Amino acid sequence: MLRSEEQSGGTVRIALVTGNRHKLEEITRLARSRRIKFYMASVPKIEIQSDSLEEIALTSARHAFEIIKAPLAVDDSGLFVEALNGFPGPYSSYVYKTIGPEGVLRLLHGEENRRACFVTVAALILPPIEKVFRGTICGTIADRPRGDKGFGFDPIFIPQGERRTYAEMSLEEKNKTSHRSRAFTSLINFLERLYEAQ
Amino acid sequence: MLRSEEQSGGTVRIALVTGNRHKLEEITRLARSRRIKFYMASVPKIEIQSDSLEEIALTSARHAFEIIKAPLAVDDSGLFVEALNGFPGPYSSYVYKTIGPEGVLRLLHGEENRRACFVTVAALILPPIEKVFRGTICGTIADRPRGDKGFGFDPIFIPQGERRTYAEMSLEEKNKTSHRSRAFTSLINFLERLYEAQ
Repeated sequence: MLRSEEQSGGTVRIALVTGNRHKLEEITRLARSRRIKFYMASVPKIEIQSDSLEEIALTSARHAFEIIKAPLAVDDSGLFVEALNGFPGPYSSYVYKTIGPEGVLRLLHGEENRRACFVTVAALILPPIEKVFRGTICGTIADRPRGDKGFGFDPIFIPQGERRTYAEMSLEEKNKTSHRSRAFTSLINFLERLYEAQ
Repeated sequence: MLRSEEQSGGTVRIALVTGNRHKLEEITRLARSRRIKFYMASVPKIEIQSDSLEEIALTSARHAFEIIKAPLAVDDSGLFVEALNGFPGPYSSYVYKTIGPEGVLRLLHGEENRRACFVTVAALILPPIEKVFRGTICGTIADRPRGDKGFGFDPIFIPQGERRTYAEMSLEEKNKTSHRSRAFTSLINFLERLYEAQ
């Protein structure tokens, strides 16, 4: 089912639907095999409202595919706080922009259960294949923001087995175990198996 | 531009994209003229993520139009709290399900500015017309939930000029000045002017 342009020179080219060049670099670094090449596709990204990151990412991917008609991957992420029934979840960027990390800390004030997980879902469309890959890293919400690296809720998230928040870790350290790396590592492993099988 | 089926017997039929029969009744009551008839269309409603209710409602409307190919209206609502930069806004139902009214009260604890507005945007598609109608009612966030009528954030919202929360008012009283009534009254007035002009 693979068209010739996708495997010219033995390489599969996957468009990464994002406007973020750092994301492209991060994911390119994960694809050790030279057979898989990601490139950036800046198409308008439609995100639906849903409690499910899978549904959001897959709908974005299908929408982008309608436009670029080429194999592609799209990801969506969120921070899910257990004591807040998963809030802010799929709406983490809106919540970040409005009430911010301080708002999340306020909601958890006096709460003993500070468990939270960062989740990324990466959706792949490579006709006729449609597949989603989930990457999760759990940990706890800090008592106060710490660190100035990273972005979003990084200053209040402490990954399991660490004492530092994401914002106190270097980008390389964070990326090594991040939810996004995990999701894309699964996606890349899937692609490598697929092409080895041929 | 009006096709015959839309004006058979001098009546314009508008599909209301909702699964909620009470909403249909409420809006039917607003349309005093017998020329405008709403009926319920239960098509899957796609809602995108956006800070703009206009964009969300219009995208839902266009999507539903692709399916039913008939004149239709779709609405989207949210509670916008000034001191929280508009949070929970377009994501009010998700926020209600997760942190609830208690969460919003906690975020506002000790905050003097308790101003908030409920907003509905109703999108109308009546080819070649695409138009959005905004209805707003402002007021304040109560210190604690009061009342057991209504739904969502009604128990913590006190409309301007009232001492009671929405949840302490009868449905008829609330509907008289509600954001949704205001948006749909504008939509209905627009339709009436349109048909009178013919």
